[in-house]
Amino acid sequence: MEDCLFCKIIAGEIPSSKVYEDDDILAFRDIEPQAPVHAVIIPKTHIASANEITAENSGLIAGIFEKIPVIARELGVADSGYRIVNNCGADAGQTVKHIHFHLLGGTTGGKLY
Amino acid sequence: MEDCLFCKIIAGEIPSSKVYEDDDILAFRDIEPQAPVHAVIIPKTHIASANEITAENSGLIAGIFEKIPVIARELGVADSGYRIVNNCGADAGQTVKHIHFHLLGGTTGGKLY
Repeated sequence: MEDCLFCKIIAGEIPSSKVYEDDDILAFRDIEPQAPVHAVIIPKTHIASANEITAENSGLIAGIFEKIPVIARELGVADSGYRIVNNCGADAGQTVKHIHFHLLGGTTGGKLY
Repeated sequence: MEDCLFCKIIAGEIPSSKVYEDDDILAFRDIEPQAPVHAVIIPKTHIASANEITAENSGLIAGIFEKIPVIARELGVADSGYRIVNNCGADAGQTVKHIHFHLLGGTTGGKLY
């Protein structure tokens, strides 16, 4: 998608600190970390938000969740614990309109919302 | 699973305020809501946490995310926005060892962790 920040990161047009990559998924460190460990996990296919998940593209989400334990282990938080957050829409403060999952850890969690 | 609170809710042994149910998924209102809208979405199959997601059971997670837009609409927050949270393990404060996704909305979101 033109003008999508995360599509540009996937294309390598904008640099990122990668922590995991395969054919379908990219994970990179958040540039404004909100926890000692804070990665952003995205599908390489553009999906605008959780509201756009359907039976046709939900396999991409399954693939992300299959890799979350791998990424958490790579980041050293699989055993200590971590939070996965997806923000959808204005109230949740979704800033980039390309679905993304925050993986946060390395400290104890606070409020859910 | 014996002694699993959410398996007991699925079995109807413990009451819940259901907002969505099908063959694979149950969603109910959190008994200690942390936002004006706060539902908990669970697979009916027991998976302990995000760390236990594999290629064999990830279809259940895909199914949950296919239904999240439906549940968000039912709860009146699909357009205004919502946050999806999964807590995995001790640092994230995972209390029930049956994977669950919080859907929170009806107000603006705070910190991620």
